[in-house]
Amino acid sequence: MQVFFTPGPAQLYPTFESHVQQAIREQIGSISHRSKQFRGIYQFAVEQLRELLNIPADRAILFSGSATEIWERIIQNCAEKETTHFVNGSFSKRFYEFSVELGKKAQKFEAPFGQGFDITRHTVSDSSELICLTHNETSSGVSMPLADIHYFKKTYPGKIVAVDVVSSAPYPDLDWSLVDTAFFSVQKAFGLPAGLGVWIVNETCLQKAEQMKQQGQYIGTHHSLPSLWKNYLNYETPATPNVFGMYLLGKVVKDMNAIGVRKIRQETEEKATLLYQFLEQSEKFRPAVENPAHRSQTVIVAEVENPAEKIASLKEKGLVIGSGYGAYKDKQVRIANFPATSFENIQKLIKELE
Amino acid sequence: MQVFFTPGPAQLYPTFESHVQQAIREQIGSISHRSKQFRGIYQFAVEQLRELLNIPADRAILFSGSATEIWERIIQNCAEKETTHFVNGSFSKRFYEFSVELGKKAQKFEAPFGQGFDITRHTVSDSSELICLTHNETSSGVSMPLADIHYFKKTYPGKIVAVDVVSSAPYPDLDWSLVDTAFFSVQKAFGLPAGLGVWIVNETCLQKAEQMKQQGQYIGTHHSLPSLWKNYLNYETPATPNVFGMYLLGKVVKDMNAIGVRKIRQETEEKATLLYQFLEQSEKFRPAVENPAHRSQTVIVAEVENPAEKIASLKEKGLVIGSGYGAYKDKQVRIANFPATSFENIQKLIKELE
Repeated sequence: MQVFFTPGPAQLYPTFESHVQQAIREQIGSISHRSKQFRGIYQFAVEQLRELLNIPADRAILFSGSATEIWERIIQNCAEKETTHFVNGSFSKRFYEFSVELGKKAQKFEAPFGQGFDITRHTVSDSSELICLTHNETSSGVSMPLADIHYFKKTYPGKIVAVDVVSSAPYPDLDWSLVDTAFFSVQKAFGLPAGLGVWIVNETCLQKAEQMKQQGQYIGTHHSLPSLWKNYLNYETPATPNVFGMYLLGKVVKDMNAIGVRKIRQETEEKATLLYQFLEQSEKFRPAVENPAHRSQTVIVAEVENPAEKIASLKEKGLVIGSGYGAYKDKQVRIANFPATSFENIQKLIKELE
Repeated sequence: MQVFFTPGPAQLYPTFESHVQQAIREQIGSISHRSKQFRGIYQFAVEQLRELLNIPADRAILFSGSATEIWERIIQNCAEKETTHFVNGSFSKRFYEFSVELGKKAQKFEAPFGQGFDITRHTVSDSSELICLTHNETSSGVSMPLADIHYFKKTYPGKIVAVDVVSSAPYPDLDWSLVDTAFFSVQKAFGLPAGLGVWIVNETCLQKAEQMKQQGQYIGTHHSLPSLWKNYLNYETPATPNVFGMYLLGKVVKDMNAIGVRKIRQETEEKATLLYQFLEQSEKFRPAVENPAHRSQTVIVAEVENPAEKIASLKEKGLVIGSGYGAYKDKQVRIANFPATSFENIQKLIKELE
């Protein structure tokens, strides 16, 4: 068996297989999505996620096909005309491009690849309705400090703040009073197969969507926010969802809660420290993100000569690391540091990188 | 273990579990969706589906989160202003409502619940661009005869014909020269867990979408037809898809091909005949669809007094049948007749229904 350090799809959570076997025994693939049993699965996942991420009771927790879909749904439902984007990599850029494709006026602040922002230097447009932030740029390994994430709602209380935590949750300890909506996908730090996005939303977002709908604006169909929310109140979904994935998510998050999110966050930092220390001391590798305050704890990006050669030789030893993203394939590698990755495997990887 | 006769989620295909175990051994949940291995999985599923459903090489086979999503994407991408819908149940009605929600002018021909159409009595509007047909209404058990499906392209060659085969594929032997696009979900007759929609599209649809995009019309973002198609050419997807589901689909369709689609279709008809014969002879049950030409071969709907009682007593014997849809919960039951359901189990069910 190979050990995956890829930034998603990623190493599966250690308990994944036993939960799959249990799901097969319980015939989860056959149950109706309008049954009491399904509503129990949805409710269980919600309760476990609330505990893990400290999500207030008044937030809806919704499911989509992917986090990419949630980019689309947020822009459709939370901005009538204008959005603002902090772009520091390929995924935050796609989020921005979605707004343009959806016909919005999109304000963009862009940092060079591998760099973060001095946020106080940028002023969000008065007419912008939605500020889109990416906590962890999976492409560049740049993370936006939590204090910066929280700065926006304090500074612009009338605007909706959306935070992409796709490849960092459950690591960031978000202050939900300063975040209107956040989202992630399960194939990153939750160690599950892809095919499910999780969307956490407050009533401010719902009201915005309802107001747009009343004005005859296009907010989508089955996966509009009012449609998802209305179904969520009954722990149902507008379309037949990935029931199997929702079942597995609830079970894996329960396992994470048994460890405790504080310990998971602490171990994430300890493993990241090991990796960054190695990169800084190495003669071959160096951290791609120079400013330590902007370095991701969950997706560590390193510069190296001949990355393809390094990736191939590690693969022969059963260790799969990620290539650099897009144009950075020739210069960088990416190493995921998710909860499914043990200290032992990080140490083993470091030894082989040496 | 219970045997499911529910119309989706449904009984899983007999080989489902062994394919899951193999997927776990191959670590399918961890592989990159930009890897050669993933492209092989996509290509394999496409090749197997082409063989099973006799899909021409020039058709793209695309994946979404659900068939419900495909309703949205078809309307967004294949109609600028006006669509036409043949509504004979709750799902064809939702397809129509999506068009209204998306701001199109939607022409609707509606048959009473449980009845089909005399299609020659209805004239599609000259300005309509897209004709939406539902081959098999999962809610009412009404099926549109293949000759009727094929009538529309012959009669209106300039319009796009879309066919919902959600709960009937692979049963209908569609003439692809008379169908522009068709779609289904995997949790019905393919006997897999929900979370994956399959969208078969021709170049006429793509050209329409590209033309709309050039005119600045809204056609979606990652799951617009041009975006899905461009990625498909490389056997990739715009967002991280349900890789596990795509893997399982390819494997199950291969198993179906080993049996042969002709035999599967023949057995479907033989099992349906057994069920309808029973319903017609029964004192307690009767077929909900009166006209035999409009009776579904895959979702058999029956009228009965106290359906909840019947459903409960069957469940105690390990046989799970579906309730009537929506307002028909008090009057009807639904019995799925998909390839995963054996002759033996149909006979066992009939015996218990007696």
